[in-house]
Amino acid sequence: MPIDLNADVGESLGPRATGDDAAILRLVSSASVACGFHAGDASTARRTCLSAATSGVDVGAHVSYRDRAGFGRRFIDVDPGELVDEVIYQIGALQAMAAAAGTLVRYVKPHGALYNAIAHHRAQARAVAAAVRTVDPDLPILVLPGTVIEEEAREAGLRPVPEAFADRAYQPDGTLVPRSRPGAVITDPARVAARVVRLATTGTVEAVDGTTIHVPAQSVCVHGDTPGAVAVATAARAALDAAGVPVTGFR
Amino acid sequence: MPIDLNADVGESLGPRATGDDAAILRLVSSASVACGFHAGDASTARRTCLSAATSGVDVGAHVSYRDRAGFGRRFIDVDPGELVDEVIYQIGALQAMAAAAGTLVRYVKPHGALYNAIAHHRAQARAVAAAVRTVDPDLPILVLPGTVIEEEAREAGLRPVPEAFADRAYQPDGTLVPRSRPGAVITDPARVAARVVRLATTGTVEAVDGTTIHVPAQSVCVHGDTPGAVAVATAARAALDAAGVPVTGFR
Amino acid sequence: MPIDLNADVGESLGPRATGDDAAILRLVSSASVACGFHAGDASTARRTCLSAATSGVDVGAHVSYRDRAGFGRRFIDVDPGELVDEVIYQIGALQAMAAAAGTLVRYVKPHGALYNAIAHHRAQARAVAAAVRTVDPDLPILVLPGTVIEEEAREAGLRPVPEAFADRAYQPDGTLVPRSRPGAVITDPARVAARVVRLATTGTVEAVDGTTIHVPAQSVCVHGDTPGAVAVATAARAALDAAGVPVTGFR
Amino acid sequence: MPIDLNADVGESLGPRATGDDAAILRLVSSASVACGFHAGDASTARRTCLSAATSGVDVGAHVSYRDRAGFGRRFIDVDPGELVDEVIYQIGALQAMAAAAGTLVRYVKPHGALYNAIAHHRAQARAVAAAVRTVDPDLPILVLPGTVIEEEAREAGLRPVPEAFADRAYQPDGTLVPRSRPGAVITDPARVAARVVRLATTGTVEAVDGTTIHVPAQSVCVHGDTPGAVAVATAARAALDAAGVPVTGFR
Repeated sequence: MPIDLNADVGESLGPRATGDDAAILRLVSSASVACGFHAGDASTARRTCLSAATSGVDVGAHVSYRDRAGFGRRFIDVDPGELVDEVIYQIGALQAMAAAAGTLVRYVKPHGALYNAIAHHRAQARAVAAAVRTVDPDLPILVLPGTVIEEEAREAGLRPVPEAFADRAYQPDGTLVPRSRPGAVITDPARVAARVVRLATTGTVEAVDGTTIHVPAQSVCVHGDTPGAVAVATAARAALDAAGVPVTGFR
Repeated sequence: MPIDLNADVGESLGPRATGDDAAILRLVSSASVACGFHAGDASTARRTCLSAATSGVDVGAHVSYRDRAGFGRRFIDVDPGELVDEVIYQIGALQAMAAAAGTLVRYVKPHGALYNAIAHHRAQARAVAAAVRTVDPDLPILVLPGTVIEEEAREAGLRPVPEAFADRAYQPDGTLVPRSRPGAVITDPARVAARVVRLATTGTVEAVDGTTIHVPAQSVCVHGDTPGAVAVATAARAALDAAGVPVTGFR
Repeated sequence: MPIDLNADVGESLGPRATGDDAAILRLVSSASVACGFHAGDASTARRTCLSAATSGVDVGAHVSYRDRAGFGRRFIDVDPGELVDEVIYQIGALQAMAAAAGTLVRYVKPHGALYNAIAHHRAQARAVAAAVRTVDPDLPILVLPGTVIEEEAREAGLRPVPEAFADRAYQPDGTLVPRSRPGAVITDPARVAARVVRLATTGTVEAVDGTTIHVPAQSVCVHGDTPGAVAVATAARAALDAAGVPVTGFR
Repeated sequence: MPIDLNADVGESLGPRATGDDAAILRLVSSASVACGFHAGDASTARRTCLSAATSGVDVGAHVSYRDRAGFGRRFIDVDPGELVDEVIYQIGALQAMAAAAGTLVRYVKPHGALYNAIAHHRAQARAVAAAVRTVDPDLPILVLPGTVIEEEAREAGLRPVPEAFADRAYQPDGTLVPRSRPGAVITDPARVAARVVRLATTGTVEAVDGTTIHVPAQSVCVHGDTPGAVAVATAARAALDAAGVPVTGFR
């Protein structure tokens, strides 16, 4: 069974480079490109889309709350009607940058606090689904499996793509351990690599309490923006290759 | 001969309303909608596009330097390569909002300091033309006639639409009197109305020194954001109607 | 018994004027000046501080979440440690603008969603109190009486100044009816004026269910940014004058 | 003769760390802390001021055009009156963060495009000098020697501190080679170290054409934000120590 590897890229602003996108893009099959609301800018987006296209990697719109100062990691109680429009705006902007780079936006992935909120916040989840459907009902949306956004995406006639996190600790109920808690992010490349292979081959992961939980992921996220991100992604990809698991986009 | 009337709209941010767009949209044939770089936001853009569509008014992308604090009225020495991308980004974002409102972006109008800069700044003018061509070579671009951007637009295979300003004073060389000078903006509705009719019927306007200058405009701009904007636009439209000049989009 | 009248001012950004601050400043005794996070800018702040000083009106720092797009009206789940620093930053910036205008910041008033949040959100309330104490423990802070921020301010050794809202509907428990509900904002000048006089002379207000509630306010807020704000504030001030209630700063 | 070493620090935004400020602060005697207009935020500023204070390093306000997207590296034709206020705002905000960290702002250094502009743009230079004088006429201001801002600072009764750049190529007229040209930034630690020692001991530097130019610097800037910044600063500091040149703040 093939698996998709996705990573967050395109987070630089102006002359300040963030992350080693070029290295990451050689390892993954899907690239979630920042749309300018939590990170990134127009030139970074275009350049990143071009690199992705050159590497045969699918481009996704990494949509966020409007929160550059907080890198999109803070819940904002934005009106759902405005959230619909802000997500449409971001997808549209990235579609234009992707087109300028000779490629297309193939999926949508909500970022950070928005991703976490729509796992349970019904009105915001519905807003995100409505936005994607308004732009293009054929755009799949990456979701945490078993959550409200998965329901709302399906309800809106969209394809929710269940996603797992190779470098994030899981709670026994299948949700992620919040970043504020110790051990939330796994940084050891070997440990992440083993988790990715297990996710891809068995659809399971070990939760923080040692129990085995089922995570029916079609895509596994490796972060592109943490220190050591490239080492982790390299280990993950090598382990998948060694295990004979094809890495390929989910569409 | 018909004439197009265009106005700047969609400049509100969040709960703060700016201008009386609804009134303006009943008077003009083209609406230049802010894309979020100097003013406006996603919901305002969508709502404004919807109002324009309902009123049978063509929507344009009012692209700008990224300068909300200065309302896009300050020259920024932005790298031309980045300017290309920022203009693409803005058009793409507005296209998505227009589509969500059931309409399309029909033209591009650079705003404020960018509009003024590309009248003479070759590299930035070329960047704006390249951006429009990249998104859609069929999108016309509103320009001050006889300027560098008119040349660059033509060179890029675009259609430059020459524009006049009903409420701005002209210098004898056909350029606008800078806003910083007294008398730069004409606020008397009757005077603006007479200028619009003269522009539409004779293609001329009186410069600040009393000389008559030729302004071959296919579109006349009435501002939507100045105090008394609605009164001015109402007078202009009534005068055109009385003179038997059809007001219609330029495409 | 004297009463303080306070209003929100200094909310313009660049060349776009918002509200009629000059008129409001002739009517109130305290002016809460935007610090640039939800509205306003450096020149607006300085100009507003100068007008306030000229009118003998006390200047306060109107601190907010960093949310210009939402005008500070959306809850943001900002880390309390960062909130401490963002409030210090805003007060410091306004102190510099006030000093440049020949006056001083005399109090702090949290704005919008932050004001509402710290009525019950313990960690954010504590953060705001810590910020004010860090800058200057002698700065009073305007609070909704009977709320968590009133406790935290007192705990931090600050002086909480209880405030009432002349133009906002109250719930029977003394909290404000949320803006999203109909009837939340009272716009009839005569009705607001009567409420202000009642608040100043009896310390009571009628809640939405007709019950009388006790609101021990030392300051009454009249908004400066709503349509008709000047008419409302004029009526409120005239009614207080007619009732013989002195309008004076609370310090 | 002692020399001051200064570096740009405090440029992180939210959870994204930029540069290795801790390492840089062990090497320099003056730290120019970003004020939030081109980089940095309130918590970063406070934390950086605290680190500087702990290391015995003087804190300066690194003031900039309002241009986060361009990292303050683009000329903005801002109105001089507004520039005065924006510089005051930034210094005031940083003063509050420095005070919260138990230290004081000891100097002002304009950043990036503003630094370059006021070397020749009289009105903006005068604005910056007026801002510093308004806040505190005892605050020295770092300047490129022989430029308009040096004159304007002196005219305003301020102390201009002449500065040299160890890692930037010079033109024969004493101005810096623009960043857009190849060779503008020197990245070889040994070469930078030799230039710093020469600047400190002889007051001269070799220009790009091989001529020797006189640069009467009291402070030498080593950048904190370039790749390899720590290696370069380490080499520079070691070379000064080996040459017996004391590194100490200029006040």
